[in-house]
Amino acid sequence: MPVIDDLHDAALAARLQHVIDHKTKPLGALGRLEALMLRLGLILGSEAPALHAPQMLVCAADHGLAARGVSAYPSDVTWQMVENFLAGGAAVSVLARQHGLALTVADCGVARQIPEREALAGAPRLVSRRIAAGTQDASSGPAMSAQQCRQALANGMAIVRGLPGNVLLLGEMGIGNTSAASLLLSRLAGVPLADCVGAGTGLDEAGIARKRAVLQQALDTNAAATEPLAALAALGGFEVATLTGAVLQAAAERRVIVVDGFITGAAVLVAARLAPQVPQRCVFAHRSGERGHGRMLDALRAEPLLELGLRLGEGSGAALAWPLLESACRVLREMASFESAGVAGPSA
Amino acid sequence: MPVIDDLHDAALAARLQHVIDHKTKPLGALGRLEALMLRLGLILGSEAPALHAPQMLVCAADHGLAARGVSAYPSDVTWQMVENFLAGGAAVSVLARQHGLALTVADCGVARQIPEREALAGAPRLVSRRIAAGTQDASSGPAMSAQQCRQALANGMAIVRGLPGNVLLLGEMGIGNTSAASLLLSRLAGVPLADCVGAGTGLDEAGIARKRAVLQQALDTNAAATEPLAALAALGGFEVATLTGAVLQAAAERRVIVVDGFITGAAVLVAARLAPQVPQRCVFAHRSGERGHGRMLDALRAEPLLELGLRLGEGSGAALAWPLLESACRVLREMASFESAGVAGPSA
Repeated sequence: MPVIDDLHDAALAARLQHVIDHKTKPLGALGRLEALMLRLGLILGSEAPALHAPQMLVCAADHGLAARGVSAYPSDVTWQMVENFLAGGAAVSVLARQHGLALTVADCGVARQIPEREALAGAPRLVSRRIAAGTQDASSGPAMSAQQCRQALANGMAIVRGLPGNVLLLGEMGIGNTSAASLLLSRLAGVPLADCVGAGTGLDEAGIARKRAVLQQALDTNAAATEPLAALAALGGFEVATLTGAVLQAAAERRVIVVDGFITGAAVLVAARLAPQVPQRCVFAHRSGERGHGRMLDALRAEPLLELGLRLGEGSGAALAWPLLESACRVLREMASFESAGVAGPSA
Repeated sequence: MPVIDDLHDAALAARLQHVIDHKTKPLGALGRLEALMLRLGLILGSEAPALHAPQMLVCAADHGLAARGVSAYPSDVTWQMVENFLAGGAAVSVLARQHGLALTVADCGVARQIPEREALAGAPRLVSRRIAAGTQDASSGPAMSAQQCRQALANGMAIVRGLPGNVLLLGEMGIGNTSAASLLLSRLAGVPLADCVGAGTGLDEAGIARKRAVLQQALDTNAAATEPLAALAALGGFEVATLTGAVLQAAAERRVIVVDGFITGAAVLVAARLAPQVPQRCVFAHRSGERGHGRMLDALRAEPLLELGLRLGEGSGAALAWPLLESACRVLREMASFESAGVAGPSA
């Protein structure tokens, strides 16, 4: 497991706050963008932080639970959407192109295998880091073995070690994976299951009730899995475990981690239980429309940037929030101070 | 006054909704970005809208009311900040550079005259459209004459007619202009003055109480100014009136209008009272930290995109929200449909 030191650098924080407070604007007038400036400065260890070569990592896998009818869509949609990511037609593909985010899709265990694909001329690439063709059904036993879980974590770490840049944006795809995220939230943060289970890709109320019953079985069946890694193996998914490894590695390397929504949030939740400094390395992109995400953000003490009722996943919310991070860094680097611009301060 | 036809095109709205609903995502999963797609498609009259040559127009002027101590900053900050805009050191300058927004600063009546400056190599330009060296003190009479108000409106229209592109982003600068915006909100939307008056650039509670008392005087002194243009002349500012003209012209030309915060919102409020279709042409960038902005958004039935506690003005919030508009258009144009991508729909 990578070692993650504490970011707490009181001297740097004070210098950053001084820089922010002397920019040509009333104190605090850039609102939460100022908190973002402070966070990015602390993560990158600089009063003039610069983001470079941002990497969008989308981890995909299938879920045994999907056979229990926990999703409005069939499992085939997982591989079909991976092909859509690679063809450039998915929301995350469009947004990554818009913002110049390099897109890596990782097959962490999609039921139907997808060939590796190198990135050509900035197109998305696919890396094959398959653990198995989908997890087992968590309602009748652990979703994966401890060995599979360790392998997925190691895969995530290795992927990040191989990526350039100092920013990692998190995305995911996997029919059934709001179920895995709900289970991990309930188990690791002690949130009642009913508050963790939502419509996912579009269940109606009867569907949500069915999903909740299946997930209760999964919690009961895996009642002994209370430690973070045991819970991840029993209740998670291959994409969630791979993302957890990616988060741990990125945090250890002091990369900025841009968290998308409910499923990537679950990976951060597991990582934070293993290394409590992880959330300090994260920027939370948005509050999603998925029931349970609010409780997850509370558990992570996170204040997300956007609140647009998104519930698509893929990393789409992280990509939409990305320009705000770039703005925060540019304002820190380029905006004048009262002194340098010759602007008067408040009246005495 | 330019003629503004109704945007209501039920057939186009239905076609746009069909396109949005058949993108490879669960129904509604892009949340409020989908409402933005619909709005941009309707304004630009296209199922594949494209934004081009976006123009940030920052109108600046001084206010007679400032001498009554309604702001935490002295009036000299208006021209100093205009110089800062032009030198590239202000927040709006930094953000306009980031996003490739052409920046035009209009001197609509700054106390200290600023020479015209042509845009060189994409640098900001200044156009001189001065009505006078600041308005009169609205607490002892009308801020401007009816003739001055008409001239400012005409100036705003002429500026927009001379700008390329199909998007206008609104910004402003003027020490004392939250007072003008508060007065217009109270008078035109019937909001109690106490709910309209906030800290502006940073008044404390005693300062806010003083500001409120001065503004009550202004309302009482100008009690007869109840029609939109009369209210604008009596209670507004040269930058607000110029922006009102700019909004009317942009709406008539079916440009997308990106509204920043409280002061540009006041210009839209006046314009909407003159031409009720105006808000349909607008995208509201953010909900600011200034007291009164929530009531203004309510009066305009506006749902802003961002809520970051910004209270800087300048157009900074409009610039921060800009990439979301670009995302909405790109998703409409570039995202695959279920059919084109060969992705399955929901399970039966």
